Amino acid sequence: MKVALIGLGSVGRGVAEMIARKGLGITITGLADSTSGVIDPAGINIPGVLANKKTQGYCGDRNISAEDIIKTGDYDTLIEVTPTNALSGEPALGYIKAALLRKKHVVTSNKGPIALAYKELRALARKNGVALRYEATVAGAIPVMHTIENGLAGNEILALYGVLNGTCNFILTRMAAEGLTYEQALMEARKMGYAEADPTYDVQGIDAAIKLVILANTIWGNGAKLSDVDRTGIDLLTPDALRLADEEGCTIRLIAEANPHRHLLRVSPRILDKNHPLVFDGTLNALTLETDMAKEITLIGKGAGSIETASAIIGDLLYIRDHHVKRP
Amino acid sequence: MKVALIGLGSVGRGVAEMIARKGLGITITGLADSTSGVIDPAGINIPGVLANKKTQGYCGDRNISAEDIIKTGDYDTLIEVTPTNALSGEPALGYIKAALLRKKHVVTSNKGPIALAYKELRALARKNGVALRYEATVAGAIPVMHTIENGLAGNEILALYGVLNGTCNFILTRMAAEGLTYEQALMEARKMGYAEADPTYDVQGIDAAIKLVILANTIWGNGAKLSDVDRTGIDLLTPDALRLADEEGCTIRLIAEANPHRHLLRVSPRILDKNHPLVFDGTLNALTLETDMAKEITLIGKGAGSIETASAIIGDLLYIRDHHVKRP
Repeated sequence: MKVALIGLGSVGRGVAEMIARKGLGITITGLADSTSGVIDPAGINIPGVLANKKTQGYCGDRNISAEDIIKTGDYDTLIEVTPTNALSGEPALGYIKAALLRKKHVVTSNKGPIALAYKELRALARKNGVALRYEATVAGAIPVMHTIENGLAGNEILALYGVLNGTCNFILTRMAAEGLTYEQALMEARKMGYAEADPTYDVQGIDAAIKLVILANTIWGNGAKLSDVDRTGIDLLTPDALRLADEEGCTIRLIAEANPHRHLLRVSPRILDKNHPLVFDGTLNALTLETDMAKEITLIGKGAGSIETASAIIGDLLYIRDHHVKRP
Repeated sequence: MKVALIGLGSVGRGVAEMIARKGLGITITGLADSTSGVIDPAGINIPGVLANKKTQGYCGDRNISAEDIIKTGDYDTLIEVTPTNALSGEPALGYIKAALLRKKHVVTSNKGPIALAYKELRALARKNGVALRYEATVAGAIPVMHTIENGLAGNEILALYGVLNGTCNFILTRMAAEGLTYEQALMEARKMGYAEADPTYDVQGIDAAIKLVILANTIWGNGAKLSDVDRTGIDLLTPDALRLADEEGCTIRLIAEANPHRHLLRVSPRILDKNHPLVFDGTLNALTLETDMAKEITLIGKGAGSIETASAIIGDLLYIRDHHVKRP
């Protein structure tokens, strides 16, 4: 199986390293970061490219672009792991469309294109007879899409509830445990590398809402958009609110929830009993699926991280390898 | 997709009802309980058969046996859901072999044959080019096998820990919550329908050990046998032990665990922090998989129940339908 890898940040590096280390019958024939590219039909020397990236800041030839690789390269599957742009989805959206039009399978960790253009991309993939997989877009290493697609096949999914943003969960954990203010806990999250310099996307619930939209479209195909999500962040929560919850044996978590029968699509701080399955400390993510036959199934795991996200990408690649790519 | 359904207890009824209700492109052409059978190449009238079973105690023609259906029936996939016999695996083991030899796919909820003869059955299925699936044997509705096979594909599974017996979890929950003795909690479990008249298999950890053996063979192909499991039940636990754990913010749960690097294959009562992901009340099951890339993934859900187990069977059927059975 030949792949083109576009994006060489934390996720891209993890994917490249795991493919190089594990020898899964996957050959990287094209690779690009934002300013350069490498092409080798015989298989790119990954350790060499990663060393170049580290020393010179870019990975290959400045005259080779991501577009060159996507539009002319020899590959079965595009791995698209550039940074998320939640407003336009670009440049990832264009990359994904170009690959699908060439009848290439696509695996992406990029929330922008999937949240913005799910219906169009799904139709384009079907029309061209290829797979579009995006396990890594929601809840990091937790195989939520595989569970929806195969593990719970035949079930009607009635509703879902999840902790889909590890940064918020960390901040709320620290506010509850130490009586910190929101600002103090955010500073701690920054120091630990859990929060970005601009934490808006995380703390205002935008990141969780984007993931909720992706889940809702995948499960119910209902054309949900980010603007449909009733959204409240955690940035106005006070230590007092957490203390009051604590006095009742409860705590507060940022919960993303969807229930099409109740027309519910919401991200907001919720008071939960401390024994609730969605209450856990730190940066983990979790998702509960409420179904007609299996009843409630909860999945808990790492929501971020280079190798953890690579796990989701590689699960998608192997699914395509085993179920879609014809082997000799 | 044509199926033969052997076994019409709680699980078999659930499967038949769900197939009849959901119309998943699955037709039941043969059906047997322990003393009678029904054959209809055009598709059996399920509500009629279930009504017969209820009124007369058997489902069909006393002159038609499970063997007749398995060996001469027209079907793609055998659904084998007869009661577990952990000593010989029979009659299920013979049923499954006969179907595989006829190049029929097999889906089973029967722990006996899989725990006793995994290697042989797996080889027989491969040789005949058919699928052998057994999602329902471990942790009821939780799609653990799908997660191992697809969701975490590419990961090395390093170890696992689980709550694989809901009866024990219920008894321990009640002992901790109310200070009940083991005998009192067992009586309550019986009244609720969570414990059998003879609770030996559950409370001595045999049921959990069988599931552990199935998981170990599936993941590591290491030929683990029931006699390899270091096993301690919950029947000698005292309310005092639970009280002492409680004083340290802990509780006791029956944990099944495997770690091939440490040669560990054990079912035993363990003291766990109350915040541990494997600590929850009631009859739920859970499994934590420790992997190299995804790190720890925990799955929680219903470990038993007619429709819940049917969910696992139907997930397997649809996987076979979509990935193995050629459609016109």
